[in-house]
Amino acid sequence: MRFDGREAHELRNVKIETNYLKHPEGSVLIQVGDTKVICTASIEDRVPPFMRGSGKGWISAEYSMLPRATGQRNIRESSKGKVSGRTMEIQRLIGRALRAVVDLEAIGERTVWIDCDVIQADGGTRTASITGAFVALTFALNKLFEEKEWPSFPVTDFLAATSVGVVKEHGAVLDLNYIEDSQAEVDMNVVMTGANEFVELQGTGEEATFSINDLQRLLELAQLGVTGLFAIQAAALGEIAEKIGK
Amino acid sequence: MRFDGREAHELRNVKIETNYLKHPEGSVLIQVGDTKVICTASIEDRVPPFMRGSGKGWISAEYSMLPRATGQRNIRESSKGKVSGRTMEIQRLIGRALRAVVDLEAIGERTVWIDCDVIQADGGTRTASITGAFVALTFALNKLFEEKEWPSFPVTDFLAATSVGVVKEHGAVLDLNYIEDSQAEVDMNVVMTGANEFVELQGTGEEATFSINDLQRLLELAQLGVTGLFAIQAAALGEIAEKIGK
Amino acid sequence: MRFDGREAHELRNVKIETNYLKHPEGSVLIQVGDTKVICTASIEDRVPPFMRGSGKGWISAEYSMLPRATGQRNIRESSKGKVSGRTMEIQRLIGRALRAVVDLEAIGERTVWIDCDVIQADGGTRTASITGAFVALTFALNKLFEEKEWPSFPVTDFLAATSVGVVKEHGAVLDLNYIEDSQAEVDMNVVMTGANEFVELQGTGEEATFSINDLQRLLELAQLGVTGLFAIQAAALGEIAEKIGK
Amino acid sequence: MRFDGREAHELRNVKIETNYLKHPEGSVLIQVGDTKVICTASIEDRVPPFMRGSGKGWISAEYSMLPRATGQRNIRESSKGKVSGRTMEIQRLIGRALRAVVDLEAIGERTVWIDCDVIQADGGTRTASITGAFVALTFALNKLFEEKEWPSFPVTDFLAATSVGVVKEHGAVLDLNYIEDSQAEVDMNVVMTGANEFVELQGTGEEATFSINDLQRLLELAQLGVTGLFAIQAAALGEIAEKIGK
Amino acid sequence: MRFDGREAHELRNVKIETNYLKHPEGSVLIQVGDTKVICTASIEDRVPPFMRGSGKGWISAEYSMLPRATGQRNIRESSKGKVSGRTMEIQRLIGRALRAVVDLEAIGERTVWIDCDVIQADGGTRTASITGAFVALTFALNKLFEEKEWPSFPVTDFLAATSVGVVKEHGAVLDLNYIEDSQAEVDMNVVMTGANEFVELQGTGEEATFSINDLQRLLELAQLGVTGLFAIQAAALGEIAEKIGK
Amino acid sequence: MRFDGREAHELRNVKIETNYLKHPEGSVLIQVGDTKVICTASIEDRVPPFMRGSGKGWISAEYSMLPRATGQRNIRESSKGKVSGRTMEIQRLIGRALRAVVDLEAIGERTVWIDCDVIQADGGTRTASITGAFVALTFALNKLFEEKEWPSFPVTDFLAATSVGVVKEHGAVLDLNYIEDSQAEVDMNVVMTGANEFVELQGTGEEATFSINDLQRLLELAQLGVTGLFAIQAAALGEIAEKIGK
Repeated sequence: MRFDGREAHELRNVKIETNYLKHPEGSVLIQVGDTKVICTASIEDRVPPFMRGSGKGWISAEYSMLPRATGQRNIRESSKGKVSGRTMEIQRLIGRALRAVVDLEAIGERTVWIDCDVIQADGGTRTASITGAFVALTFALNKLFEEKEWPSFPVTDFLAATSVGVVKEHGAVLDLNYIEDSQAEVDMNVVMTGANEFVELQGTGEEATFSINDLQRLLELAQLGVTGLFAIQAAALGEIAEKIGK
Repeated sequence: MRFDGREAHELRNVKIETNYLKHPEGSVLIQVGDTKVICTASIEDRVPPFMRGSGKGWISAEYSMLPRATGQRNIRESSKGKVSGRTMEIQRLIGRALRAVVDLEAIGERTVWIDCDVIQADGGTRTASITGAFVALTFALNKLFEEKEWPSFPVTDFLAATSVGVVKEHGAVLDLNYIEDSQAEVDMNVVMTGANEFVELQGTGEEATFSINDLQRLLELAQLGVTGLFAIQAAALGEIAEKIGK
Repeated sequence: MRFDGREAHELRNVKIETNYLKHPEGSVLIQVGDTKVICTASIEDRVPPFMRGSGKGWISAEYSMLPRATGQRNIRESSKGKVSGRTMEIQRLIGRALRAVVDLEAIGERTVWIDCDVIQADGGTRTASITGAFVALTFALNKLFEEKEWPSFPVTDFLAATSVGVVKEHGAVLDLNYIEDSQAEVDMNVVMTGANEFVELQGTGEEATFSINDLQRLLELAQLGVTGLFAIQAAALGEIAEKIGK
Repeated sequence: MRFDGREAHELRNVKIETNYLKHPEGSVLIQVGDTKVICTASIEDRVPPFMRGSGKGWISAEYSMLPRATGQRNIRESSKGKVSGRTMEIQRLIGRALRAVVDLEAIGERTVWIDCDVIQADGGTRTASITGAFVALTFALNKLFEEKEWPSFPVTDFLAATSVGVVKEHGAVLDLNYIEDSQAEVDMNVVMTGANEFVELQGTGEEATFSINDLQRLLELAQLGVTGLFAIQAAALGEIAEKIGK
Repeated sequence: MRFDGREAHELRNVKIETNYLKHPEGSVLIQVGDTKVICTASIEDRVPPFMRGSGKGWISAEYSMLPRATGQRNIRESSKGKVSGRTMEIQRLIGRALRAVVDLEAIGERTVWIDCDVIQADGGTRTASITGAFVALTFALNKLFEEKEWPSFPVTDFLAATSVGVVKEHGAVLDLNYIEDSQAEVDMNVVMTGANEFVELQGTGEEATFSINDLQRLLELAQLGVTGLFAIQAAALGEIAEKIGK
Repeated sequence: MRFDGREAHELRNVKIETNYLKHPEGSVLIQVGDTKVICTASIEDRVPPFMRGSGKGWISAEYSMLPRATGQRNIRESSKGKVSGRTMEIQRLIGRALRAVVDLEAIGERTVWIDCDVIQADGGTRTASITGAFVALTFALNKLFEEKEWPSFPVTDFLAATSVGVVKEHGAVLDLNYIEDSQAEVDMNVVMTGANEFVELQGTGEEATFSINDLQRLLELAQLGVTGLFAIQAAALGEIAEKIGK
């Protein structure tokens, strides 16, 4: 039994509140246990300089935490005048993951800006961000899809992310909370599609290493986790869920 | 009648949800019409360098907006690498206002960090921030007060802020929303205490000017507004409200 | 009697030296007691991006202090790599104030850059900057007015600024010098036009508050102060003064 | 057959020139095909603030490219005034990987600074950096080991990194050069120890996805690659190689 | 005859107004033709980190131009967020030059901050800065000298700077103004002591070169120039001039 | 005899390895004693904004040191977020010097980017950079010359740089290494052309001064030094050397 009473293969309680804010084209509040992230998707009618003239769209993500999302207050990155390496890694990951399930040619020269703002953190903020951002993005692209009467829906598959890890005394577990994360010997973030394919796999030994057997056990747990998340995303999307991949 | 059906002297609908986040010593979500701000108060056991050795505490405020709090997405200040003049003005104002109703000697060499993060903006974000931050601050200081068994409560009076302005076709009005604000000829932010005294008065003609008579009418409206806000703050604070000024 | 022998309603000695520098379209050295500010106005034949295509002009102000304008040497903002919140507040105030008395449509898509550089500080540098900048600006716009043979003069009214405050033992006083400013319980900057209208009113209790009666007394003093300043500005402008508002 | 005539499971030609520079405690020039990286290890007798008093050491890595290491000249990060997200990701990866095979308690409160400067780039610069840095680090720690007469050698195992990927028309391949990398659908960096354990696994679908079978094939290739690299590292280290893990 | 009627070996009209500002320990306004620079010297009772514990003092210089010191308005370096290469070169030069004639051991662990702020520029701002700063510095050190009753005066010799150059159609000339400077093929700044020794010599061919004969002629002119400047400095210093070198 | 056994007028051992890197249009590794610098020349088909439309080309230089090029590790300028004054001075010097021997009109609106990256430092890095960069630049321009079949070769003369100085106990010496440089009373960098003309002369007394006689002796040594360097450059350039000035 884990600190919070879950079994090794159990996700935390996940809720996705849709249309959370009035201005963005898509927005959700996702809660994964005590981790809470506001994810928004904003459409801009142009692409970054390196994409101009390509006829293709782009998805760009930004990630931030409120200063007091955590137990200790963090200094704002705007006050420091620069974005940390950790933040950059996370926002690059979110953007790359979402681009894997969007037909960028279909959306034309547009950027979808994804903003993931963590208002409360308890482990797994980057995977919660990806899982929530997928829903916000799908809402925003559905708006465009209906407005422009495109022939096919630009989201090609479901996409969700979860963490798995090896924690002292508990072994391989799914969906680590903050306490587990801080004690993990191996920490792995997995992003998968509805078709059971990997988009991203980032495993790290924290001053430790892991074997091929550890890896297999972790990937099985991750598979279980994203399957649960796809169901919750589908429920949040309602009828729009059925358009995905069509 | 105003755009949203209010009369000139009416506040928007105001709600204050307390204990909104689990980590901060004090936290609220304040809603003033469609403007929504998360206000948190965090206690740090030291003061900025210029206060060290003074025996007095300090209150420091930071303010930010989510990129898509507004109709158009704004670039994050962390991405720009610097904080805008507008943000600096607002955070200096919030800190100064709150310091006027806290006995800084009583709290000793501690800093209370106030963070106001606007998640949805529809005018009046700085005044909503002050009104909400006052409640979060009082919760946080009450925690210290009980823990340390101080002889008197360190919050000396209520404090709330509202905006008033002169809007074309509607004249002097209370609590401007975004549309009114963008059409205002005169825009004034007023911060007052429970004792009916002014803490801050910032009136600006927007490529326009105002007379002493305009000023008097605006201050009467502001007085009405803060009186309404004090009642809502008191309800949110519950029994703690009775300790203020004692 | 005040520290320097003035009565409560007396301005310090004010001098405005015109055509102080050879390059700018308008330039003055204003002295208000021991406060000395070089104010220049430079014409640029384009507007900032947000104004392009509007057919209107813009006035943008920058403010700085020499490192040793003060008793203690200050680190240059260029060395720190960023402009302080105080500087931003002041330069936004100066620009906003001047824009209230200029017909921005009449000047067409041009920017007037106002630079206020404090070479010696003894309190009231922002109000001295506004009062001096008005004269530099009027000289610069007069140059354009004569060159372009515009039908009407683009400066619509006089504009001056002064400070008033409540100082321990002296009560409400006009035009605070540095010592008074550092002891003031209430500090208010007032920008007014020749027509006795307010453009900006910024009153702050410094860990203190003020009543409506205090406010009235302070505004009466401010009125006296700007009336004196208008006369000194008119003398400095000579014949150009008569074109204002015509 | 691949562009450069290699078979799918073949590494490029790898050379490690040791004691490449005169000042650092350890330094190599590693060449992996046309990729050339100068790796240095510098000992500093203190640790970063977050490690002080822990009694443990730290390994911190920095990575950079000469502007003309690539086909197109890149602007220096020092000129841009900030380090890119890509650079941050890479230097965090290098440091984390090396820390997994060093006994940080044994080295005491010291920092080993690893600097990887790419002088010529042709794909795989981050994995070449890790493989080369391991050798430079081991030289530097051997110096300390001999000087301090420590009871055991602080490097606990070999460590090397390589890339594997899925390239259109060629399928799964080992050690991608620049052309292959730019055409890869799946790109994976693998860091392994001499004991065949994983330290880092970072797999990314580039607007594509990969299956569990793809993953298995890629990990087999990676295993082959690092085995080859360990032999080259051992040869470069000479007798010091035998101290590792003892 | 030159543009302004001077002969090749003639300095422009030079004036040094002493005690120009009330706060600094030493301050002058130096005018060299239409070039006007405010030079101040401020004493700080500590040295930069790299000098701590050395028992020696330091002289640090900063240089800046008002935005409209020149014909075209320049963007402030504080707004750009960084100091230009030109500014850095000049401030390093000023500090280095002054340190050559001060007994740094005699002044103990103190920093003299030199600030040179150009309020009007017409060529030769860096040499005017050095010449003026020498006077401000000597006033400031004299204050310390009298206060501390040091056995000997810490300024060991006079120091002045001038420019010489080769200008098309005019050949070698002394003390170039802006027009000459912008047409010069060779531009040389020379800093010399009262003993006729060089402290700095910086000669540059501007897309041109110069021979050893050119150099000799330029150095003769420079010698003439600084001799004139020493006399003007001595007059400005009054009796203090006699203490120099004693 | 000097520390390393050289006589006063002797250069260190100089080697220039050409075509050192595969991507740049020109590249060398220059070694001057233990100082080693990679110099590359990259052609870009446009000029900086201030040159556009002039029909002329430009040469822009950047200079950097690897963190461990020196005895103590230096913090990277990219990590500090800004380029030091020393770096700026050096890169401005390199660019200016090279522009003196290139026919900028002949190369048309192109920029040649010179990058000098010091991988090992032992004094004289800036002069080694200039001497090496001249060779890299000539290779790059020869490529353009052959490709475009220009009527004349755009490099108009040889260019090399060396340092001379006055060192305690050794007097005037040529080509100072690090130890000599750190003990020098006078330090002078001299850039000369094949025609024996000066391009740059930068002499500095380090808390010391120098006489006209010192200067003459130093310039004679510099003359000797560059003559030796021209021969080494010519050998490195091979047949291309004969095109220079034609």
